[in-house]
Amino acid sequence: MASLEKVSSNRVSTGYLTKYKFPSSSLGGLSTQFNVFIPSSASENSTVPVLFYLAGLTCNEDTGAQKGGFLNTAGEEGIAIVFPDTSPRGAGVEGEDDDWQLGTGAGFYLNATAEKWKKHYNMYDLVVKELPEVLKGANLGLDFSRWSITGHSMGGHGALSIYLKNPGLFKSVSAFAPACNPSKTPWGINAFTNYLDYKTRSSPPSEWLPHDTSHLLQNYKGDVNILIDVGTEDDFLKKGQLEPESISSQNKKGVEVRLQDGFDHSYYFISTFAPEHVAFHAKFLKA
Amino acid sequence: MASLEKVSSNRVSTGYLTKYKFPSSSLGGLSTQFNVFIPSSASENSTVPVLFYLAGLTCNEDTGAQKGGFLNTAGEEGIAIVFPDTSPRGAGVEGEDDDWQLGTGAGFYLNATAEKWKKHYNMYDLVVKELPEVLKGANLGLDFSRWSITGHSMGGHGALSIYLKNPGLFKSVSAFAPACNPSKTPWGINAFTNYLDYKTRSSPPSEWLPHDTSHLLQNYKGDVNILIDVGTEDDFLKKGQLEPESISSQNKKGVEVRLQDGFDHSYYFISTFAPEHVAFHAKFLKA
Repeated sequence: MASLEKVSSNRVSTGYLTKYKFPSSSLGGLSTQFNVFIPSSASENSTVPVLFYLAGLTCNEDTGAQKGGFLNTAGEEGIAIVFPDTSPRGAGVEGEDDDWQLGTGAGFYLNATAEKWKKHYNMYDLVVKELPEVLKGANLGLDFSRWSITGHSMGGHGALSIYLKNPGLFKSVSAFAPACNPSKTPWGINAFTNYLDYKTRSSPPSEWLPHDTSHLLQNYKGDVNILIDVGTEDDFLKKGQLEPESISSQNKKGVEVRLQDGFDHSYYFISTFAPEHVAFHAKFLKA
Repeated sequence: MASLEKVSSNRVSTGYLTKYKFPSSSLGGLSTQFNVFIPSSASENSTVPVLFYLAGLTCNEDTGAQKGGFLNTAGEEGIAIVFPDTSPRGAGVEGEDDDWQLGTGAGFYLNATAEKWKKHYNMYDLVVKELPEVLKGANLGLDFSRWSITGHSMGGHGALSIYLKNPGLFKSVSAFAPACNPSKTPWGINAFTNYLDYKTRSSPPSEWLPHDTSHLLQNYKGDVNILIDVGTEDDFLKKGQLEPESISSQNKKGVEVRLQDGFDHSYYFISTFAPEHVAFHAKFLKA
């Protein structure tokens, strides 16, 4: 297993935010960086629960840590937060830097199956499998039996789909302005068309559906703990990228979709509701 | 008087953060931008108190708004926050972009008297006189009879020196890692040597002292409300740029200097204590 190299460390809230890097087998051996906030109370003998934050298109491991407004509440609640990057960096795939909606900064939290991308673009494995293993191996005081996940936009799709693909692995999920129905909306269609190899030409192809939150929720057995916030003045809501009604219209128990009046897609929206999201997860992580 | 042109507006906390620009006479007619957070409760008939945040070297009007962590507490307290830029932009002064400690991003919140800089580099007049006048003229619901000021690093010097130069104008001042004794420390010596014309060659020149917080406080008559936080792991503290003991050693009533264990010079430090600073100012602004 890869070992972690410390890049930087900053005292913040009741602990430290530390940036690490390691060579990721999920990403074809490329080095990947992440930030992790750990309350100073955490130790091997006194572990703390863990929240993952998945950022959106064009962002990286710093964006949520710097602008998200999560850390003070996480510190008060005694919860660690892990901020992964949003894609491999420097894979050298032709065209990966040409489109902000694909390639670098746009890994979409899935494992690519298309020949061109599949060696490096496996952010699903990185987030769900490799990163937790590497963190457990580092003995930083994180308790992955108490694990929740949140994210923004593309990262909201990531958080919700990862939660629903892994029943029982996470205590709760939340999302800010997530792409809820990516098999039918432009960002998702662009990503799935490129990253996923598929044989059928139904619309949407059946190979896409296991990565679509709306579809996953329809077929989910068991209880869920889901909180979604979307701003009513979000341009990407207006452009049909988010489709929160594909979730709210299912009227599932344990799912709350809130439309926040006047808010947009920015980190000003996220930082306003970040404390509430951390508190939402704390309820399940510390139950 | 210049009128404001809206650049952008984002719903955040209990109000909106709006970016404006206007041609500034203080800055020789150059356009300057600032952000202002205003709680939605503010109106011409129900005004709110005002806090100015002055950012540090290399920063601009966005840095404190995006990374400072001030807005949720300001929203709860019903306080507006104004985030000015840190220098003129595009003045065309020879060498203004060559050194991150001078020129662009480094206005030092004073009025330049040296021939080369004096047409444009008058951030003191912008912050203390022109910006309040322009804001009052725009009828945004801000009450400048309840006005406080804070800042970081170079902006901490700005906040403290501006407060002490104007007895009675501000209710309170606070600072994060401020340059407390700039007439004797490298950033200040560099800035004052370039921006300020002076005839004497005493060390420090007497023309510098009216811009030095430590000197201003020594000679201040009357009560003060001052809160200063400095991290013990701040590299610029270790390099002798900040010198908080030049303030704390005066043992003045109404001055609290706190050394925060393990914190550095970054916005992670600021965002940790920003809620406490807003609450400190609220005590005086809402008294």
